[in-house]
Order: sequence, then C-alpha cells, then structure tokens
Amino acid sequence: MTLSSDNLIGGARIPGGGAPWRGVEAATGAALEPAFASATSEMVDQACRLAAEAFDSYREMALSARADFLERIAHNILDLGDDLVVRCMSETGLPRPRIEGERGRTVGQLRMFAEVVRAGAFLGARVDPAQPERKPLPRPDLRLRQVAVGPVVVFGASNFPLAFSVAGGDTASALAAGCPVIVKAHPAHPGTSALVGAAIADAVAACGLPAGTFALLFDSGLAVGQQLAADPRVAAIGFTGSRRGGTALMRIAAERAVPVPVYAEMSSINPVVLFPEALAARGAEIGRAFVASLTLGSGQFCTNPGLVLAVDGPGLDAFVEAAAAALPEVAAATMLTPGIHQAYCTGVAALTENAAVTVLARGKAGGTNQGQPILFGTTGAAFLADHALAEEVFGATSLVVRCRDEAELRAVLEGLEGQLTAALHMDAGDHGAARALLPLLERRVGRILVNGFGTGVEVGHAMVHGGPYPATSDGRTTSVGSLAIDRFLRPVSYQDLPDALLPDALKEANPLGLPRRVDGKPA
Amino acid sequence: MTLSSDNLIGGARIPGGGAPWRGVEAATGAALEPAFASATSEMVDQACRLAAEAFDSYREMALSARADFLERIAHNILDLGDDLVVRCMSETGLPRPRIEGERGRTVGQLRMFAEVVRAGAFLGARVDPAQPERKPLPRPDLRLRQVAVGPVVVFGASNFPLAFSVAGGDTASALAAGCPVIVKAHPAHPGTSALVGAAIADAVAACGLPAGTFALLFDSGLAVGQQLAADPRVAAIGFTGSRRGGTALMRIAAERAVPVPVYAEMSSINPVVLFPEALAARGAEIGRAFVASLTLGSGQFCTNPGLVLAVDGPGLDAFVEAAAAALPEVAAATMLTPGIHQAYCTGVAALTENAAVTVLARGKAGGTNQGQPILFGTTGAAFLADHALAEEVFGATSLVVRCRDEAELRAVLEGLEGQLTAALHMDAGDHGAARALLPLLERRVGRILVNGFGTGVEVGHAMVHGGPYPATSDGRTTSVGSLAIDRFLRPVSYQDLPDALLPDALKEANPLGLPRRVDGKPA
Repeated sequence: MTLSSDNLIGGARIPGGGAPWRGVEAATGAALEPAFASATSEMVDQACRLAAEAFDSYREMALSARADFLERIAHNILDLGDDLVVRCMSETGLPRPRIEGERGRTVGQLRMFAEVVRAGAFLGARVDPAQPERKPLPRPDLRLRQVAVGPVVVFGASNFPLAFSVAGGDTASALAAGCPVIVKAHPAHPGTSALVGAAIADAVAACGLPAGTFALLFDSGLAVGQQLAADPRVAAIGFTGSRRGGTALMRIAAERAVPVPVYAEMSSINPVVLFPEALAARGAEIGRAFVASLTLGSGQFCTNPGLVLAVDGPGLDAFVEAAAAALPEVAAATMLTPGIHQAYCTGVAALTENAAVTVLARGKAGGTNQGQPILFGTTGAAFLADHALAEEVFGATSLVVRCRDEAELRAVLEGLEGQLTAALHMDAGDHGAARALLPLLERRVGRILVNGFGTGVEVGHAMVHGGPYPATSDGRTTSVGSLAIDRFLRPVSYQDLPDALLPDALKEANPLGLPRRVDGKPA
Repeated sequence: MTLSSDNLIGGARIPGGGAPWRGVEAATGAALEPAFASATSEMVDQACRLAAEAFDSYREMALSARADFLERIAHNILDLGDDLVVRCMSETGLPRPRIEGERGRTVGQLRMFAEVVRAGAFLGARVDPAQPERKPLPRPDLRLRQVAVGPVVVFGASNFPLAFSVAGGDTASALAAGCPVIVKAHPAHPGTSALVGAAIADAVAACGLPAGTFALLFDSGLAVGQQLAADPRVAAIGFTGSRRGGTALMRIAAERAVPVPVYAEMSSINPVVLFPEALAARGAEIGRAFVASLTLGSGQFCTNPGLVLAVDGPGLDAFVEAAAAALPEVAAATMLTPGIHQAYCTGVAALTENAAVTVLARGKAGGTNQGQPILFGTTGAAFLADHALAEEVFGATSLVVRCRDEAELRAVLEGLEGQLTAALHMDAGDHGAARALLPLLERRVGRILVNGFGTGVEVGHAMVHGGPYPATSDGRTTSVGSLAIDRFLRPVSYQDLPDALLPDALKEANPLGLPRRVDGKPA
C-alpha cells in the first residue's frame, strides 16, 4: 500500500494547501515522510456538501448492504497488513502488541456494528395500530422508527490511533446509524490515518455507495475542525481528546444557528476505592496489579486509574509498599506526542512541588519523549482543600489519598466531577460499605467495576464508556459498545401513511422481520 | 378543594415573597383571587436541595410503587372535580370540552407512564455474561441499565394548562424515569397550577415518598426560572413555550459549570402539503377541514397548520374558496393571555401590511382578548424571497403558498427550519410525488401525517412530538408519548459486581422479570 498524504473527498485524492507538515516518529522526534498539507476551506466545504448529498441515499440503503460495507472496511483494514502496524508504531510510540490488539478491537467494533445493523433493533420500530372505532375519537395509525441524524464529523483521537480514530468507534457507530462521516485526522498519526482512510474509501467504492459517504481531511491546526463543527450541514460531532478541545467544540456547536449535539469524551481520573477487607487480605497484590494498570500504554488511557482512595491503615500501607516496590521496575515509555509528554511533565512537576503531596515512588527515568511513571500520596483533608489535586494529568501517574475514615472518603467522592469509571476492590466483608457508596457512584460515573481496573474497555452491548460531565459532554450516552449507535439517531413518527409509502421497517407485513413494539409491547 | 396560593416545597405550603400578583380571567382581563406571591431565592434553593436529597431514594423505589404513585396523581386530579375545570376555563378562556378533554389526556398520560414503569423495558437492561475462558483475555461480566439523570425542572406551558403543565407530559415522564420534579408554574394559570400541584403533593405524602420528590414554585417574572435552570443540582430541564424562552434556557444550561440537557419545545409552522389529485378530488372538503383545524382552540397549538403549500391550479382554487367561505363563519375566540393576544395581533398586522401577501378571508371580529382568525395567501417566489413569512404567528392564522410547480414547492420545504409536523393530503395518484418528498420531510420534521392535520397529538408509544431545531431544542427526543421517558435517563454499566450488590433489574435471576438483552439479543 502506498501511503498518500492527500485528503480523501468524494472518492478523490485531493492534495491540501498551505505549508507542508510531517508526521513525527514518537520515539525520536524525527520527521516522517510523506509531507502532508492541510485541507483548505473549499475542501471542507466540498466534503460537507458531498456528505449532505449522500445522506438520503446512504441512510436508506438496505441494512444488509450497510452491514456488508462495515465488514468490508474491517476486511480492508486487515488487508493493510504490517504496513499499518509499522506506521502506527512509529507515529505513536506504542508497542506492536498494543497496536495489533487495537487493530483487532477496531475490526471487531466494525463487525459488531455490522451485526447490530443486520439485526435492525436499533431502528426502535414501534407500531400503534389504528383504532377506527375508538370513542370519543378514532385513533390514527402511528408508526415510529429511528432515522440517522445527518452527516457526522469525527475527530480522530491521539491516544487510540485505530480504535478511536479514522475507523474507530465514533465512525463505526455513525456509519452504522446511516450517517455519512467526515473524519478530521489527528495530526499525531497522519500516516496511520491516511492508510485507514484509504481502506474506508476503497470500501465505499467497492460497495457502490455515494461518494460523499466518507471523507478524510488533514490539518495540523484547528481551522479545519472549527469549520467542520460550524458547518450547517453537519448534524453531530464525535470527539475524544482534551477538555479544552471538547469544550471548544461544545461552544461552537451551541452557538450555531442550529445547535447540534457534541459527543466529546474529555477527561477522567477514574477513582479506585480500596475497601478494608480486600486491603487486609491482599493489599500488596492489589498494589502490584494497580501499577500494571497505571503504567499500561504509558498511562495514556481515558480510563487510567489516576486516583486511589482508601481509609488509612495497615492494609493501605501494604498496598502502597507493594506499589512503591513495583514501580521502580517499570521502564519509562514513549508518549504519543511531544506535546502530551510536555503536559505530563508539567502536571507531574506541579504535584511534586505541592507541599501537601509526597512522592511515593518513581519508575525508571526515560529518554526523549518518554514518560517516567510516578506515584504520589496525600491525605483526604489535603485533597478536599485543593481542587487542583483532582485535575487529570494524562499519563502514568496517580495519587493515593489516605482518608481518615469512611466519611472523609465519601466526601472526596462527592466532591469529584463526573468520571468514566470507578473501580472498587472489595471482599465479601466489604459489601456493606460498597453498597453504601453505589448510589453516589452511579451519579458520578458511567461504569462501576469490581476487583479490576478500568483500563480494559470491553466492546460489547452492556458497556458504557461515558459519564457525567466533564468525563463526557453528554452523559446520556456511551462511545464504546453497541449502544453508541443511539447517539446518531432521532425518532420520526408516521401517521396514517399508506403502507406503500412506509419505510420497510414499518410496513404492516414487517418484510425485514424486525423486532418491533406493537402498542408498546414486544411483538 | 380550597385553592392555596402558596408554593409547595418539601410537602409544606410556603407563602412567596415580594409584591402580590393575581391570575387573570382570560375573557375579561379581570383579576382572580387569591393573590399569589413569587417564590424567593431561598425557596428555590430549598426546593433544589430537597430534590437532590430525595433523588437516590426516589429513583430506587420499587417500580410497582412508583407506578402506584403516578396513578395516585391521576386519581387525585380527577378528585379535584369541577373546581379544576372551572378555574382552568376561567384562567385560559378555553371551553369546557377542551379542558375536560385535556384533563382526560393528562390523566391518561400518567396512567400510560405507570404502565411503562411497571413493564420496566425503559430500564434498557443488558447483560453480557462473563466469558472466563475467552482468549487472549477473559471477558468480564457486564450489565447495563438506565438510571434517572437527577432532579428535573419543568416549566408549565401556557397553551396546555393541564397536559403540558404541572402534571403534564414532562412531569409525568420525569417522575416515571425516577427524577424528582420541580415545576415552575406558568403565571397564566396559577390557580390551575396550585390545584394540580396540591394533587401531586398529596400523592407524594400518601405514597410515603421523600418530601423533595415534588415542588411547585410560583413566579410572575423570570427570576425563579433562571435560578432553577442554573442550579447545579438540577440535571435536566423541560419546557414548552416560545422560542425566545427556550433559547434563553438553552443559553443558561450551556453556560453552567456542568451543562445539562434542555428539552424545549419552541416553535413550528407545521407545513401542510396539498397534492394535485387530492385537491382535484376534494379540494373544497380539505379546505373546510383545514379551517376547523386552524381555528381549534383559537389556533393555540404547537401543531397548528400555519403554512399550506400546493402547486397552483383549479384544485387549489377550490381549496381556497372553501376555506375562505368557511372562515367568516368562525367566531373569534378568547386567547390564553393578553400578551399572546397582543403578539398575535402584531404578527397578523405585519402579514397584512406585507405587499406580497393578500388576505384571503377573516373570521368574525372579536372582543377583549379574542383572536380573529385570518387566512393569508402568497406565492412561492414571494415566500422564498422573504424569511419573515416563515415565522410562526401563534394563533388562528395561516399562509397559503401558491407554488409555480413541484420544484418550487420542494424549494419552499427545503428552506424551512425544523418543524414538529408535516401533513400531506394525497390520493393514490399522488403517491409518487409524496414519495419523492418523504426523505426531505424526514429531515425537517418529527411527524409526517397523511390526510389529516397535526392538531390531534395522540399519546401513545409511536408518537413523536418533537423535531429538528428550532421546533425543539433537541430533535433526538419527543415530549409526548412513552418514548419521552428516555429524555431523563442515562446508562450505567456494572462490571463484575457481585450479584448481591447489583440492582434488581440486573441480578442474574432477573427477579423483576424484565425484558433484557443478553449478548445483544432479546432474552
């Protein structure tokens, strides 16, 4: 596969304009070939126009054909072979097993959404049959289905170059819903983006879909993303990244003549609560597992365990001792970009200089662009007194908060902003204390997990990767798992429409064999 | 039932502060007893605090008990008897059959949501069982349910004093979802609000629910609503009213430290498309039915047919002639408030003075606060040239747009903002033309109906009363029908939680007998 640095618009390769820029080898900072050029304003406009033109046709194609298209994308990504893996490793500094695993997840997501599309339950078909004899007024025939919202803009994420980037979860769920997608590639992995974008564009062509079904635009700055978010033809926005970036998009979307939903996954410190019995029984074991989760992928996960809470005592000492013993064995690892590395160093420095915070342990020092893991400690009182301690530092660092008692631990949790996950380490004797915290945690997080860490995000039907603001911009949704398709749908009701004019999903004979609710009941 | 003008907070009657104000008899402008006083800032704060305190307890009560509560509210409203009907007629100027019908709808909505709550499908329970043997990694046990978002603020609507006010669709769906509700009563019907509020408060007490489950606050101005919308304990907002009011709430909600969803149903002119064969066969008949829909309730419906589109020709002439013959027979009717009447007169005057618009017919002239129906006509070219012609004039007025051809009619529809409904009048020979418009209409409206008018909004499972902005602030939802409950829910996922700690909805034995999806499939 030759790597083309062109934008992909309407099935054509279109070179960008302005000053050329290059991807960077994460480990060395060396520039990578080829040079990229950012999409011009005219190209953004063209991509939006083509997406709007493709919309009606794409959203009404047969479900089975749409599923085939998603599977074709998966097939084409695998067909890229090692070229994709090597380029992705180079641009991100992530090791081969991680990239191969992420590729598997990406392909798996596309195939899961193909299944979801074939099954058709996502259409939420409802039929309330006419009751012509009803008194005092006859009831009309009413039928409802979910339709795609319109063209969707997806911003590739730096920390998941495959699974949350060009053909990642946002793209897969939006395409599954019936929305054309315009991806703004993340400039931290332009080559990876170009390869995957070509795989999608090839699938669009092979499946005979409208040319505007997919576009890929490059930009080293902010202009393309801002123009996309403001374009009146764009109906929704998917984003995974920083809080600053996500809230900027929320502002643009709210100030449009027609506001649109923004699904931004932004920041989370993912509290880990260690309960006394679990600590007493296996504090050291938990400490070692914690270090493994903390330092996975250089800590560059949205679900990284950035905060550990426990009531002070010998069990917590055992946890801390084991973690502090394990961490110095962990090598520094290359971070995704120099900017992320710099932000990590700044965040770590601020904590190091904070008088209320102590350094519990450090990992091995690293070289260029490598993040040195570091574990901090503080008290519940100090944490409650300083809001800065609750801010996310993206990377392999965490803060252990020793709480005086259960009430203080609860107060720390009450004071937290919305989070993606909370992890509880507990044994049977901890159930009462855990039960008391569950209502609070349900209000604060999207996923509550037990005796594990949030860093493995299963792609399934019961997964929620989302949470109250600012974990995400819209806590009513998830960006991972089959429920993510709901973000890109809206209901339309048809009253007394002749059967011949009804969409197949709602025809009386149910030719698609869909699960439907009739008078509110499954039928 | 004695009518108390006190605010209802935490089960207590609390007199407001500041200058007293009174409800007004719509027909005469005469002040009605008793005097009301607006809730103070402290009272708003107290209502929010109590709602937040009630939240965890209320949302986790047994589904059957929550359903009983909703039915108890319905029962209590009926128990208010004629006092409610008489007061409501007086405050709104709406006739007895309308108020009695609306009461039936209100009670029916509450009972429908009781059924929805008992059935439990709204919890969207999903189970992905553990796969401990899966390679390369075992799969955890994942379970998902929808939980209530938190305290909800509902703004009573002026035009539906029962069905979209204190115990209306927003309140019913939020309570059904498990959210405490704080209602800001509409000052156009304070007495009606007080009576219904007492019915809810009595149900809260009778069912032994937390006192903060419900509050009713009065205000003749904007301060209470603004404070409620900005309060950090409020998780969502329901509103039916003007575009100015709805967008003001959207701004407040977007600018909060933690933005929250606003479900505002704001403005719609509800295009009616008359196809040639239907016009040729029964243009006059459609014209008479149109006048009946247009003038129903003095035209004060969100779904009022404010725009009629057809290709020029003799069929359209017949329609216009019949409508113009029927309208002069229609009496002017009292409008909801002097302010709404004034706005209607202003809007009508602007159209009357518009050189591109002709008056086709007027209804009978009226007295104090009465709206005289009026039908206007223009051409497609004039409509396309003047955006002001697409603005809603709330009341019994509509604009017939004569289009040169199908292409011009389509252009008019393409240029419209989002709408609640589109009504199509068609015969068999019109199917082709209608089919060609459906994709466009699906993008513009929430409900497409055939050979009828949108003014009857059936409360059912397949109804969508919503639509793209600015028909509503959030076109992904409906404010009428059982699907409205989804507005007040968000998903939470539980990973490897011990069965004893899982909510009943997700326990392995499924003790609630809920419909659930297991590995994505109905089970």
